[in-house]
Amino acid sequence: MDKINSVTIVGGTHGNEYTGIYLLKKWQQAPSLIERESFSTHTLFANTNAFRDNRRYLDCDLNRQFRTPDLETAALSNYEQSRAKAINAQIGPKGQAKTDFIIDLHNTTSNMGPSLILLQSDDFNLQLGAYVKQHMPETVLIMEDQIPLADQAYLCSIASQGIIIEVGPQPQSVLRQDIMDWMDELTKHVLDFVEAYNTNRVTNLPDTVDMYAYTETLKLPMNEYGERVGMVHRNVQDQDFKPLNPGDPIFKYFSGEEGYWEGNYVAYPHFINEAAYYDNNLAMSLAKKVEYAVP
Amino acid sequence: MDKINSVTIVGGTHGNEYTGIYLLKKWQQAPSLIERESFSTHTLFANTNAFRDNRRYLDCDLNRQFRTPDLETAALSNYEQSRAKAINAQIGPKGQAKTDFIIDLHNTTSNMGPSLILLQSDDFNLQLGAYVKQHMPETVLIMEDQIPLADQAYLCSIASQGIIIEVGPQPQSVLRQDIMDWMDELTKHVLDFVEAYNTNRVTNLPDTVDMYAYTETLKLPMNEYGERVGMVHRNVQDQDFKPLNPGDPIFKYFSGEEGYWEGNYVAYPHFINEAAYYDNNLAMSLAKKVEYAVP
Repeated sequence: MDKINSVTIVGGTHGNEYTGIYLLKKWQQAPSLIERESFSTHTLFANTNAFRDNRRYLDCDLNRQFRTPDLETAALSNYEQSRAKAINAQIGPKGQAKTDFIIDLHNTTSNMGPSLILLQSDDFNLQLGAYVKQHMPETVLIMEDQIPLADQAYLCSIASQGIIIEVGPQPQSVLRQDIMDWMDELTKHVLDFVEAYNTNRVTNLPDTVDMYAYTETLKLPMNEYGERVGMVHRNVQDQDFKPLNPGDPIFKYFSGEEGYWEGNYVAYPHFINEAAYYDNNLAMSLAKKVEYAVP
Repeated sequence: MDKINSVTIVGGTHGNEYTGIYLLKKWQQAPSLIERESFSTHTLFANTNAFRDNRRYLDCDLNRQFRTPDLETAALSNYEQSRAKAINAQIGPKGQAKTDFIIDLHNTTSNMGPSLILLQSDDFNLQLGAYVKQHMPETVLIMEDQIPLADQAYLCSIASQGIIIEVGPQPQSVLRQDIMDWMDELTKHVLDFVEAYNTNRVTNLPDTVDMYAYTETLKLPMNEYGERVGMVHRNVQDQDFKPLNPGDPIFKYFSGEEGYWEGNYVAYPHFINEAAYYDNNLAMSLAKKVEYAVP
């Protein structure tokens, strides 16, 4: 892969995820914190009106509006659909983007700690994951490479390289210092890696690195009328990235009964009971623990 | 005080505080759980449209609309102001209410555990607090009797007796089983107390009970333009009801500096970094620990 010449750090893709928004403010006051010699660094406050209204979004989730056909459909014109087109014009266009690497900053209400979501399993991303884990061992690495980045709907898919930094637990519309410190440090290591990558100074990485490879998403228990009839089991609550064995309880029905993990593999739940996913009645994402060779 | 003949349990006064809303659904399926022999029990889903829209409120905070002059001002006619008048007509009117005791169920994003907020320090409330603490020792008792209940703006001030059950930490728009179990149990003990009170079977209470008596509210650090310039210090985050000594750090400024507790008493913070209080830039409430004699 070519050298990374331009990096864009995005905050406020969701208006009630405060950490990235306030980190952008901090870095705009002290740009040297995110500058490196071998590339230029830019910042982008993605969904200003959602932040003004203290909501995730006004009309639809901005971070699902960046599929190329949608960007090319003028009739998709609500606030977030329009904002997506404006952002694509500013730092894209997708496929020929002015920026080479997008770091999109998010919060979750789930107990995921400092997480780095990688969307491609190429040399750049595998080395990036290994480097960050080496320098900040509490980082959790998630691999979501089930579809090509160019086909993703995420904002960071505008560039040829994009990642999501996802830090929690933090309630929506709250700023926690511990979460801000984690996101600040994680972003620093990502920028340091790009500097090392550009200057051929990535060395001493481990041979392998463990990641959580996304497998599927579980829905909350619902009845035939579409009403929720249960919730995440207390044994699973806050246990993001802890192994879930076939037969373990995962749901507690309001009737008192329990639901169990019915898969045939050891699953690693994450985004457990994430507030923003109730819109779609999602209970949690699952992953398998996978050992990747570091190139 | 006279016998309590009618109790109303209220859920969903804030539309994104899910626990009370789902407990109401549960109890409507199994009314015997909240029925007792000596009084009738009713349920009320207060802000249905805010729940539909997954928000705390549509126009203004419903739980601040129950001052008598406001209830009597027809021109106060937005959704929550109208809802307040409708609720007052249904279970009030305030001052001559059809219901004798209101239990209003709330969640907080703060780490407050199962908390019972008492609004009067009369025999009924002091005995109630002591009884609940005796049967559920993890309960935290908060006394907010700085103004008469009749002058309060809370929904539960419609009746001559009203309390708020406040359980956290739970992000807005999330349902946690541990929080639901706590609220369910705390409500049960409150109802059991009323039954014992009505039938003169309140016995074996301790001589004294410790409560956290509200003193003041601290604002988040702001600059002269009204922008937040700092956040709750990580030493204080999640430390609800832990002592804060004069000189202890309470704020971390984005500039890196720290702010300190400048009062002259040992304060017990609560509602620390509560999401819903960012609207008014509130950082936390403070209390003094006070030993009350149980009548």
